[in-house]
Amino acid sequence: MISAIQWSGERLKLLDQTRLPGQIVYLEADTYVQVVQAIKDMRVRGAPLIGIAGAYALAMAARDLRLRDPSAPQQRLHQIANQIVSARPTAANLSRAVERVLAATARAASLLEAEELAVREASLIHTEEEQASLALGCLGAALVPAGATVLTHCNTGSLATAGIGTALGAIREAWRQGRLKRVVVTETRPLLQGARLTAWELAQEGIPVTLIVDSAAGDMMRRGDIHCVMVGADRIAVNGDVANKIGTYTLAVLAAENRVPFYVAAPTSTVDLTIESGEHMPIEMRAPEEVTWLSGVQVAPTGVDAINMAFDVTPARYITAIITDRGVLHPPYGEALKTLLGDAEKPVSSAAYQTTG
Amino acid sequence: MISAIQWSGERLKLLDQTRLPGQIVYLEADTYVQVVQAIKDMRVRGAPLIGIAGAYALAMAARDLRLRDPSAPQQRLHQIANQIVSARPTAANLSRAVERVLAATARAASLLEAEELAVREASLIHTEEEQASLALGCLGAALVPAGATVLTHCNTGSLATAGIGTALGAIREAWRQGRLKRVVVTETRPLLQGARLTAWELAQEGIPVTLIVDSAAGDMMRRGDIHCVMVGADRIAVNGDVANKIGTYTLAVLAAENRVPFYVAAPTSTVDLTIESGEHMPIEMRAPEEVTWLSGVQVAPTGVDAINMAFDVTPARYITAIITDRGVLHPPYGEALKTLLGDAEKPVSSAAYQTTG
Repeated sequence: MISAIQWSGERLKLLDQTRLPGQIVYLEADTYVQVVQAIKDMRVRGAPLIGIAGAYALAMAARDLRLRDPSAPQQRLHQIANQIVSARPTAANLSRAVERVLAATARAASLLEAEELAVREASLIHTEEEQASLALGCLGAALVPAGATVLTHCNTGSLATAGIGTALGAIREAWRQGRLKRVVVTETRPLLQGARLTAWELAQEGIPVTLIVDSAAGDMMRRGDIHCVMVGADRIAVNGDVANKIGTYTLAVLAAENRVPFYVAAPTSTVDLTIESGEHMPIEMRAPEEVTWLSGVQVAPTGVDAINMAFDVTPARYITAIITDRGVLHPPYGEALKTLLGDAEKPVSSAAYQTTG
Repeated sequence: MISAIQWSGERLKLLDQTRLPGQIVYLEADTYVQVVQAIKDMRVRGAPLIGIAGAYALAMAARDLRLRDPSAPQQRLHQIANQIVSARPTAANLSRAVERVLAATARAASLLEAEELAVREASLIHTEEEQASLALGCLGAALVPAGATVLTHCNTGSLATAGIGTALGAIREAWRQGRLKRVVVTETRPLLQGARLTAWELAQEGIPVTLIVDSAAGDMMRRGDIHCVMVGADRIAVNGDVANKIGTYTLAVLAAENRVPFYVAAPTSTVDLTIESGEHMPIEMRAPEEVTWLSGVQVAPTGVDAINMAFDVTPARYITAIITDRGVLHPPYGEALKTLLGDAEKPVSSAAYQTTG
C-alpha cells in the first residue's frame, strides 16, 4: 500500500496524484506555500489527507516565520491558516486540522515554542487519522454482505487518507475478510479519480475491479448488479447531510430508488458541528477547463461555457448509515452525531480562530 | 445547420463525427461495407441518421450485386441486410429502415429493378425522417416553459437525424420561438457526444449552452436549475420503455425525484412494436477501451476491466411524455402507441424478412 504523505521532520513528501497511474512522482515541499499550491492543484487530495497536509503546512509556516522574522507576531500564523484553509473550502478536515494546529500554538510563549507545538499537533493529527482509517475500515467491512459487489465513487483509499482509506478502507478490509466479490468503480469525471486512483489502488492489491463511466451506475443498480454503495465525505453537517465529490447525490438517489444500501464512510474529523445542514455547505467551484479539456486534449468547442462544481450535497434521508471511526451511525443523524461527538468535540469555529491571538 | 448525410445518387457522403468539433471531414462511401464500418465506428451515429445510412447502404449493396454478380439470387440482399442491422443492434430505426428497403425490393423481377426500388425507398425514408424531425421539433417546443433552462443528454441534433434533430430539434425550435433561456448539456461519456457534438451545434447557432459532467446533472436538478429534461431514444417498446444513451435512466430517476418533467423525443420510426417492454431490448456492449482511454490518452491502469454498455433502459413510468412526429403521447403509453401507429404500422419482423424471398 502506497503512502501518499510522509513527514521527514523538516519537509513534506507528497505523492503527486495528478501523475497517477502513469508515473509515481513525489513532490518535496519545503514551504507552506508549496503545500497550498499542491492542494489547490489536487496533487494531494482526499479530505482526510489534505487535513494532514494542511496541518504540516501550518507547522512549516511557524518554522519559516521564526527563521525569517523572529519578531513577527503570532497573529501572522492566523493569516497563513486562513490561506491554507481557503485552498479547498469544502473539506471539513482541512479547516479542522488547521484550527487544531493553530489552537495548539496559542499557548506558546515564543515562535520557537509555537513551531514545536505545531509540529507535535500535526503529527498527532497524522497518527489519529491513520488509526481512524483502520477503525473505520473494520466497522465498514462488517456492513458488506458476503459475496457482495460494492460500488464506490472517486477515491477514498490510501491516496485520500493516512491509512487504508475511508470507504475504500472498508472495501479493502471486506476483501481481506473474504466478504467481497468485486468493486465497481465510477471513473469520476472531471478529474477521473476513480479511473486513475481507485482502479489503480485496487488493481495493485489484486482486488477485482470493474470500471464504468459515471452515468452507468444507475443502470447497474437497476439490474441488481450492485449490493451496496460506499462513498466518502468531505463535510458532514449536524443533521447528517453530506458534501462529497460531484455525483454522490446522484448515486444516493439511484440507490434509494433501487433499494441498494448507501453508506458514507468518514472519520469524525469530517463532521462539522458548526453547520446545521447541507444548504450551508461551502461548495468549491473549479476551473471550467477541467470539463472542457481532458488529459491535455480539448473535448468541447472553444468558447463553450462549462460549470464545474467539485462537490454536491446528499441529504441525510438518502443515507442508510454513516460509518465513522467511533461507530456506525443510523438515522436520525442529528442525535447520533451529537451523542457520538458531544460538546467537547465542538471544533474551534472559523470566527473564533480568526480573532483569538 | 450542417448536414450529416448526403446522397449523390451514387455514393453516400457522411460527416465523420468522430473528428468533431476539431475538424469537419466528410467520408465518401462507395460500398455498403464502408457504411457498415462507419456506423460501427460511430463516424455516423444517432438512431434516425443510422437508419437513413443503413437504407442507402442496402441500396448500394443492390447495385454492387447487380454489377458484380448479375445472376446472384436476391436472397443475397437478405444476408447483407442482416449485416447492416447488426452494425448497431439497439437503434430500432436501423433495423426498421433496412427492413423497409428490403421489403421494397421483394416485388422486383430483377436485380436492376431491386436496385431502383431500394434507392427509391431509401430516399423516401430520408425525406420522411427530415419531415418527422420538423414536425417533432414543433410539437416538442410547445412543451418547453417560457424562459426555461432545458437539460439534454448525448446528441440528438442535426448530427443525429436528417433534419433539425429530435430532442435538440425541439430545443432549437423553442429557441427560435423565444421560449428558451439556456441549454445544459451533459458531456456524455464515454464518447462525449454532448461536449463534442451538442455543444458545438448549439454554439454554432448562438444558443446559450452550459456544459457539465454527467454526474452534475442531479445536483443541478436538486437546486432547481433545470426546468425540463429532453432526450432522444434509440428504441421504444410497446409499453413505452425507452432504450437510449447510457445515463438516460439516471437522468429520468433524478428528474422524477426532483419533479422535473422528463421528455423523450423520437420519430415513430424509433418505436418497435415487436418488443413488449424494456426487458427485451438488445443492448449494445462496446469496447472497454472507450472507457479506459480518452482522446488517445490512457486514463485507467493497464489491465483494469471496464464495462461499456452503450445504452440503458428507462422504464415508462419515469417519462412525462413521448414526443413523436405524429403527436405527443402521455401515459399509459401502450394504448397511446397502438392508437397512434395502429396495426398497419407494424414493421416486418426480423424473422419475416430473413425467410421471405
